[in-house]
Amino acid sequence: MINIKENSELNILNHSCAHLLAHAVKHLYPNAKFWVGPVITEGFYYDIDLGDKVLTEEDLPNIEKEMKKISKSNKLIKRMELSRDEALDMFKGDPYKIDLINNMDDNTVISAYKQDDFIDLCRGPHMESTKFMKYFKLIKVSGAYFKGDSKNKMLQRVYGVCFYNEEDLNNYLQELEEAKERDHRKLGKELGIYLMIDLVGKGLPMYLPNGFILWNLLENYIRNKEIRRGYKHVLTPPLGNVLLYKTSGHWDHYKEAMFPAMKVEDEEFVLRPMNCPHHMVIYSNDLHSYKELPIRIAEIARDSRYESSGALKGIERVRTFCQNDSHIFCTQEQIESEFKGVVDLILEVYKEMNITDYHFELSLRDPEDKVKYYPDDEMWNKAESALRKIMDDIGIPYEEKIGEAAFYGPKLDVQVKPAVGNEFSLSTCQIDFCLPMRFNLTYVDSDGSKKTPVVLHRAIFGSIDRTIAYYLEETKGVLPVWLAPTQINIIPVNMEYHLDFCNELRDYLLDKGFRVSVDDKDEKLSYKMRESQTKKIPYTLIIGDNEVKNGTISYRLHGSKDTVTIDKKDFVKLLNKKIKEYK
Amino acid sequence: MINIKENSELNILNHSCAHLLAHAVKHLYPNAKFWVGPVITEGFYYDIDLGDKVLTEEDLPNIEKEMKKISKSNKLIKRMELSRDEALDMFKGDPYKIDLINNMDDNTVISAYKQDDFIDLCRGPHMESTKFMKYFKLIKVSGAYFKGDSKNKMLQRVYGVCFYNEEDLNNYLQELEEAKERDHRKLGKELGIYLMIDLVGKGLPMYLPNGFILWNLLENYIRNKEIRRGYKHVLTPPLGNVLLYKTSGHWDHYKEAMFPAMKVEDEEFVLRPMNCPHHMVIYSNDLHSYKELPIRIAEIARDSRYESSGALKGIERVRTFCQNDSHIFCTQEQIESEFKGVVDLILEVYKEMNITDYHFELSLRDPEDKVKYYPDDEMWNKAESALRKIMDDIGIPYEEKIGEAAFYGPKLDVQVKPAVGNEFSLSTCQIDFCLPMRFNLTYVDSDGSKKTPVVLHRAIFGSIDRTIAYYLEETKGVLPVWLAPTQINIIPVNMEYHLDFCNELRDYLLDKGFRVSVDDKDEKLSYKMRESQTKKIPYTLIIGDNEVKNGTISYRLHGSKDTVTIDKKDFVKLLNKKIKEYK
Repeated sequence: MINIKENSELNILNHSCAHLLAHAVKHLYPNAKFWVGPVITEGFYYDIDLGDKVLTEEDLPNIEKEMKKISKSNKLIKRMELSRDEALDMFKGDPYKIDLINNMDDNTVISAYKQDDFIDLCRGPHMESTKFMKYFKLIKVSGAYFKGDSKNKMLQRVYGVCFYNEEDLNNYLQELEEAKERDHRKLGKELGIYLMIDLVGKGLPMYLPNGFILWNLLENYIRNKEIRRGYKHVLTPPLGNVLLYKTSGHWDHYKEAMFPAMKVEDEEFVLRPMNCPHHMVIYSNDLHSYKELPIRIAEIARDSRYESSGALKGIERVRTFCQNDSHIFCTQEQIESEFKGVVDLILEVYKEMNITDYHFELSLRDPEDKVKYYPDDEMWNKAESALRKIMDDIGIPYEEKIGEAAFYGPKLDVQVKPAVGNEFSLSTCQIDFCLPMRFNLTYVDSDGSKKTPVVLHRAIFGSIDRTIAYYLEETKGVLPVWLAPTQINIIPVNMEYHLDFCNELRDYLLDKGFRVSVDDKDEKLSYKMRESQTKKIPYTLIIGDNEVKNGTISYRLHGSKDTVTIDKKDFVKLLNKKIKEYK
Repeated sequence: MINIKENSELNILNHSCAHLLAHAVKHLYPNAKFWVGPVITEGFYYDIDLGDKVLTEEDLPNIEKEMKKISKSNKLIKRMELSRDEALDMFKGDPYKIDLINNMDDNTVISAYKQDDFIDLCRGPHMESTKFMKYFKLIKVSGAYFKGDSKNKMLQRVYGVCFYNEEDLNNYLQELEEAKERDHRKLGKELGIYLMIDLVGKGLPMYLPNGFILWNLLENYIRNKEIRRGYKHVLTPPLGNVLLYKTSGHWDHYKEAMFPAMKVEDEEFVLRPMNCPHHMVIYSNDLHSYKELPIRIAEIARDSRYESSGALKGIERVRTFCQNDSHIFCTQEQIESEFKGVVDLILEVYKEMNITDYHFELSLRDPEDKVKYYPDDEMWNKAESALRKIMDDIGIPYEEKIGEAAFYGPKLDVQVKPAVGNEFSLSTCQIDFCLPMRFNLTYVDSDGSKKTPVVLHRAIFGSIDRTIAYYLEETKGVLPVWLAPTQINIIPVNMEYHLDFCNELRDYLLDKGFRVSVDDKDEKLSYKMRESQTKKIPYTLIIGDNEVKNGTISYRLHGSKDTVTIDKKDFVKLLNKKIKEYK
């Protein structure tokens, strides 16, 4: 979807439309006071103080009507520049605007925009007349604390969007509808994937039975791939002593993303934000010879990070999540082949999981930023050159991103563009010369000398939680057979005559390793068919007289109205083929 | 092993032997000062201040020699009763004894025991002469802070044990040796099962690749059993909002076993000590009809509890561990059949895992203790009677234990006696009428009325970590084939001629689903055979000319010196049979 904030023409239009909204609200609610009305990715909003009045969706058409009236009347929008005293005088009695003015520094040119009987403090620029804001829509309304602080008053935040023509608006609204349909929070609820409630904690998802099946399939899928590639899996605790993170440097460079520490006797523990330190310690526990390298330590690892509650979003941005993480300890000479191995694994997984819209980014340090990054220019230059060379050798195109590196080294990020929303890093592979030194890691080389290994940090699913969210949105919840929590739902046409056969069939299919349910509820066939559809089960089997008589299976694929009748052995073959092909 | 502290005759003997130890030490180190010398389960120890001298195991024979001398000289041991002033005068210049005297209350009869030139403050009683302490052994020495506080001086703690005759002593020492051999901390290290180091945190185990294989096998084993019995698995976060534990009552009744809370924005989080609250919340998220019950929510769940560092022991007592936990939500009428189902599952698992030395205990509340237990006598009486009736109906004998219940209800504990050490609760099943009320859980009954379900809390492996420790000690690390991290180790007789065949064989066996290694190290055959034995791999394959020529397999079972030659298909059958039988 288009990013309105970053489109300069739409930005001005939407900002002007926020004023139009405020103008209309002032007409309808003369006591209204206005805080701020910024442009956002999805359009604009305005935070409004309506006293005790709480706006609902039902109020929006009326506001829209008034907006249209003002728009039609073609009011000119005029800029006025004011001295601080003039501004304070003009907005006296409006604590919100006074607050804004008082927080402007002395060099700011204070300006206001006037359209007919409405004046608002604003930096601008704006459209020249209200008539340009013709194709708009108010999307929703919600409460929002003044300055985002729950101790302050709750304001009414009205969201809207505006375009230059009707077609663009309609397209956008359709996309919005589509995004709503695909929203993993909606699908996650409908399909019983996860549950998140404040009593348990914001940003702490609980995977429900269907969600856990999906989770476990993804976990086993990636772990089996790793086992075949020589990774060794470990299981380490989700917390560690603060000293561990002081050793690694996380305490200095990453503390703001960590939970507060817990003091226990003479130790201080902290929930771990990353797994590198644990894996470093595992490596350092043994003496290593060059003959053993590379050593690939892997873990489906639980991490916890502090995210502000405002940044949380479903299972996309959470406070505790699992990475399929790995640290590859290797010699300098092995960096390239190991790195290629990781890229190869990423491409293999993307192909099987049908992830097609992605590109590679090299995330490098910002050499000016001496706080965020571990300070060792030589180390950084070496790692960044190595990474560039490897990518050039592999021959995959990439973009360079300054200031996006991890604190300990540069990285390759694979950016995936989802069906809705912004692209995100799904996979990563990072070169690290830093942590091996900090943990004094060594191996004995062929000449008997002690050397420091290099570490590649890599994750294919940077977060299993995020991957589930992505996959739900990509598939609109219609998961491929291999991932569907229930693969087959069996419905008897008549409960009295066909249920036994359905149960036998279920046991047969369970024995073949499928995930099967029988709908033996006391409901009509049509109701059950609809429910099977709503639950997005790939195969719905309808079992009636013919099926019982012939021992066959009649199925409907999700979304199809065609019924296919097939021998049950062939059905098993068909499903196994699909599963093998990750379809 | 015998509990010396609880055996009154051995208790006196060992306490007298502690004095004998102190007496000998005073002869050898005239400046020695003595803190306390109690009897413990394993014998006795004495904490001694030797100034800067640090005792090592090498000093022990010399001390033993002096003890034997004093013993032989048949010194009478005489009791003296002292006034406080006499006592303070007698021990003046000895800060440890003065500290003890000052901490006695006024009613205590102060007594001291004298044997020849050695006097020690002691309550007694003691043997009448040093000659009775003839069959003793000093076991080990370690540092111990005065009063257990790391800010205080480090004292020398010498451990020993004493018996009435040589045979008992030798038997005991042999058992001790056996216990050392079986100690899961030693085996865990030798077999690469887990690693625990202070930098990561005391009581926080990290499972190494072999340990994770074992872990994963146990996890899948129990989860698959649960799936077949209709359990639904979930995955919930290892922490929760403090409000959750206030709702459940853990905050009031279990706080001392919890980690400190972490404040994040307007929420306070705490590592969860148990999973009940999360599962209650999952249940309460949906409306439920009586038709859906029982609902069995299960999770291999990570819990964290505060244990004092002194109580920690390998992976037996840790600060973070996993339970195979479940909460069964059922009607009153279903309690009995569900409870029986749990007992049935416990017995099935114990049989397959060859756990034979166990008994059942009913853990009931102490009705006098109004702090530890949720205060509702009616609820407790109901739950305790229900539990007794069920056990009587099942017809399995049990003991009743007062004061061992969970805070929310009574429970059945299955106490397992390990090869070494004390018995412990491996499995549990608890009846809970309390938490369902606290979380306002309901279901709609057949008559349309809202009712509160009963919850059974159950765990088969109360801690997977503890189960691994137990199993390592039971098997002395020689794990049955189905659990062995490496099941088959293939050794080529000659690296040049036989290695290719070994690698082919490995691929063949890997394809059959076994865990296989080829030892292609540049070492002698005898060395590799020994190492395969040390690593306790069940099957070692020795591949030479005959095997290559005939395409056969020659194997040695762990601990056996016999080589068996067999067709490779028969070998696969043999292993699969063993695995199927959990052998």
